[in-house]
Amino acid sequence: MPGEFDFVDWLKARQLPRPAVVIALGDDLAAVRWPADDLLLVGVDQVLDGVHFDSARHSPREIGRKVMNRNLSDCAAMACLPAYAVATVALPAGAGLGYLQELFLGLEEAGAPFDCPIIGGDTASWPGELAVTVTILGRSAGLEPITRSGAQPGDGIFVTGPLGGSILGRHLSFEPKVHLARQLAASCRISSMIDLSDGLSRDLRQICRASGVGATIVAEQIPLHDDARDLATGDPEKALRHALDDGEDHELLFTTPDAPSAGARIGTIMHEPAILLQTAGKSTELSPGGWEHRL
Amino acid sequence: MPGEFDFVDWLKARQLPRPAVVIALGDDLAAVRWPADDLLLVGVDQVLDGVHFDSARHSPREIGRKVMNRNLSDCAAMACLPAYAVATVALPAGAGLGYLQELFLGLEEAGAPFDCPIIGGDTASWPGELAVTVTILGRSAGLEPITRSGAQPGDGIFVTGPLGGSILGRHLSFEPKVHLARQLAASCRISSMIDLSDGLSRDLRQICRASGVGATIVAEQIPLHDDARDLATGDPEKALRHALDDGEDHELLFTTPDAPSAGARIGTIMHEPAILLQTAGKSTELSPGGWEHRL
Repeated sequence: MPGEFDFVDWLKARQLPRPAVVIALGDDLAAVRWPADDLLLVGVDQVLDGVHFDSARHSPREIGRKVMNRNLSDCAAMACLPAYAVATVALPAGAGLGYLQELFLGLEEAGAPFDCPIIGGDTASWPGELAVTVTILGRSAGLEPITRSGAQPGDGIFVTGPLGGSILGRHLSFEPKVHLARQLAASCRISSMIDLSDGLSRDLRQICRASGVGATIVAEQIPLHDDARDLATGDPEKALRHALDDGEDHELLFTTPDAPSAGARIGTIMHEPAILLQTAGKSTELSPGGWEHRL
Repeated sequence: MPGEFDFVDWLKARQLPRPAVVIALGDDLAAVRWPADDLLLVGVDQVLDGVHFDSARHSPREIGRKVMNRNLSDCAAMACLPAYAVATVALPAGAGLGYLQELFLGLEEAGAPFDCPIIGGDTASWPGELAVTVTILGRSAGLEPITRSGAQPGDGIFVTGPLGGSILGRHLSFEPKVHLARQLAASCRISSMIDLSDGLSRDLRQICRASGVGATIVAEQIPLHDDARDLATGDPEKALRHALDDGEDHELLFTTPDAPSAGARIGTIMHEPAILLQTAGKSTELSPGGWEHRL
């Protein structure tokens, strides 16, 4: 059954090279020369009722914060500064103005620490479920945007925080690592970066595919979040699987030949294209267990 | 019952003035200084199954074309040049890769005449109905963007084509009037402009509200589309009502103190805030009959 990545592959194959499009489809954000000597970054992300949240349990404020934070986290993944956002809301008929306002306040609240206001949007009511999108504009602001495609054999692989079990609540309350990303990019040679939205096993694969490399990660070095341990109820293998496969941690996964000022090293980029998990000194192929939308 | 415009009013009241945001919420697009001496325009629009199209009757190619053309038409309304687009698709589970590709081809096809490629996006599958958004980036490219707020008493009110009955098919097949808008803006003083998406009676009200003016339009001067006549089956009053209230014509409605090179004059901007319809020399208040999303 094809998935969203098959669609992205198809899209990429269709792209005509354009000198002004510096980073095209398939990264966290796209980047265009705007003006001719600078870069404008742009991306869009959506959250859908029943997929990314549950409107019966989550407040509109939380939902608004989540979709904005996902986009801000895409900025972090490129080490760019968020600047402006536009949003759409497809609102279930009868949800009411108050609900919409709460949702907007969630968007606004998440953008505020980054001075990223909502400057436009579109609201429509429909018989369907709630769907919210945010499009983000970012500035490179003196730092070369970091793509997924620059990882080199020998680079260390790092994550900025403990992983797994975000479903216990962090998927709604995570903080986008914009400032940390800028600090890392300013202080060492980050060769590739992505924010962990689909799970380590899948997002590491994105970096490897985009960079044409492989990777070995070491099970014992992967920082487990308490939430992963809680979900695993004492089973260490299960906790590891949560850290590998759970999505929506929104920590940064990055590679560098340097010793970065933050992040835990979990492995090494390899020349061979395989992605391996080393457990107690034994390597096995790491299957992608994370999230992919089935079409 | 509050509607989307109540929400926009609430949003506008919350906006802090920002020197770099030249045109904020409530116009066709927002405009920001980017770089400091130029403008970047940005907007987003969505189409929803059961509201803007019917996926049981309309092909994904048509749906894709429609959402892109709506955004291109927003560019026309500001007399700016479309540059890049990003899109989201919330796809019903099981719709399939082929469906998604057809949809994308519709987006691409509509953008191609304006050299406006899709440079990013997000696809997700969900149990809900199809929802598609496009965010458009535009360039002012040497022409001051035309807002809704510059209409002056005495200005003529013009439309670029016949109105009404778009539901018979034009809502899916209209052509965004980007080049005509640029030509008009380059050749005379367009004081305000909007694209007719919600219906003349409602969109004229947008211009009047934003500009703090009123208007008188003359029934006999409003160009009726054959589709409006067809829907009215010979009743001229009904045909006029279709021209006044039907949405999705995507002709341009603009005001100017000059004699423009294109467009039919339908009335005059007045100092008094009322919006009047003159029929056989008799003026009555024009009620807004067009489309507003109820919340």
